[in-house]
Amino acid sequence: MPHLHLEYTANLTDLNADVALMRLNNALVGSGQFGAEFDIKSRAVKVETFKVGTAMTERGFVHVKLALLSGRSPQIKQQLSESLLAVVKELCAWPAGVEVQLCVEILDIDRESYAKAAIGV
Amino acid sequence: MPHLHLEYTANLTDLNADVALMRLNNALVGSGQFGAEFDIKSRAVKVETFKVGTAMTERGFVHVKLALLSGRSPQIKQQLSESLLAVVKELCAWPAGVEVQLCVEILDIDRESYAKAAIGV
Amino acid sequence: MPHLHLEYTANLTDLNADVALMRLNNALVGSGQFGAEFDIKSRAVKVETFKVGTAMTERGFVHVKLALLSGRSPQIKQQLSESLLAVVKELCAWPAGVEVQLCVEILDIDRESYAKAAIGV
Repeated sequence: MPHLHLEYTANLTDLNADVALMRLNNALVGSGQFGAEFDIKSRAVKVETFKVGTAMTERGFVHVKLALLSGRSPQIKQQLSESLLAVVKELCAWPAGVEVQLCVEILDIDRESYAKAAIGV
Repeated sequence: MPHLHLEYTANLTDLNADVALMRLNNALVGSGQFGAEFDIKSRAVKVETFKVGTAMTERGFVHVKLALLSGRSPQIKQQLSESLLAVVKELCAWPAGVEVQLCVEILDIDRESYAKAAIGV
Repeated sequence: MPHLHLEYTANLTDLNADVALMRLNNALVGSGQFGAEFDIKSRAVKVETFKVGTAMTERGFVHVKLALLSGRSPQIKQQLSESLLAVVKELCAWPAGVEVQLCVEILDIDRESYAKAAIGV
């Protein structure tokens, strides 16, 4: 906890996913909401097959999902999503002529049934 | 909002993912539930590594997840899942000798902490 | 139902994803919680782009998500997550010098709006 998933469409060719994850993780550490930087587990997936709406316009999106153990207040969740969205907006030069939607979603992980272990720590 | 994820196993070789997303998006627009076709963000992933059950029979699946901002009624959600399932059933000729399961799941996105922005729109 | 997603980082080079899914599915069948082995739909994804925390240490993770139709008790969910975590711990020899986190999460699928069909069964 937390788990972050970054999806971005393949037409956003200037987006560097490694840099993106580093910046997003830094924002999470900077939020002061997480005890250990070590706990932040983030991954990025380039989406090769996608469709936004039904029109023929060229479009793309970036979608960040942050999954947190249940129990945080709505205010904290809003702050986290806004701070992640601020990072996403600055991730790269967005391609001209592409309509890009940027979204951040916060979801809960059921705390009682979450199990974990660490190897080599 | 909404976000649609389509997963399909690699043994469903006649499934055209681009066509599938177009048909699913059209069904969502046709439902009348979404203000702007632009809002529908869909992606497809071919699943290369999978296992259905424990038997040696050849099997596969198609799984559609539709994530909606929270607040819709159970009836609306059922209608949406049934209409998406109807699309999925007709996506392709299913391979002979493969047991294929088709599933549609509707889930809520927490409305209060959802953040978004648009570039170039 | 149930759906299992296994994610593992690409630096866990000894992890055989096909074997992993077979063992996880066997554990689910062995739990006695599912009527038909056929119902268990599992997939694995190797995560190529990831970042754990902000330090430069080499790290990785395995994340299992098990999605169940809503209605099971917290106790059953805890038992399932613990039994899946026990399988994950034994999946492979973990690479020396890599800090690896193993996580299992159980989540609910909304039962009322879940739709499914079977082909060729």
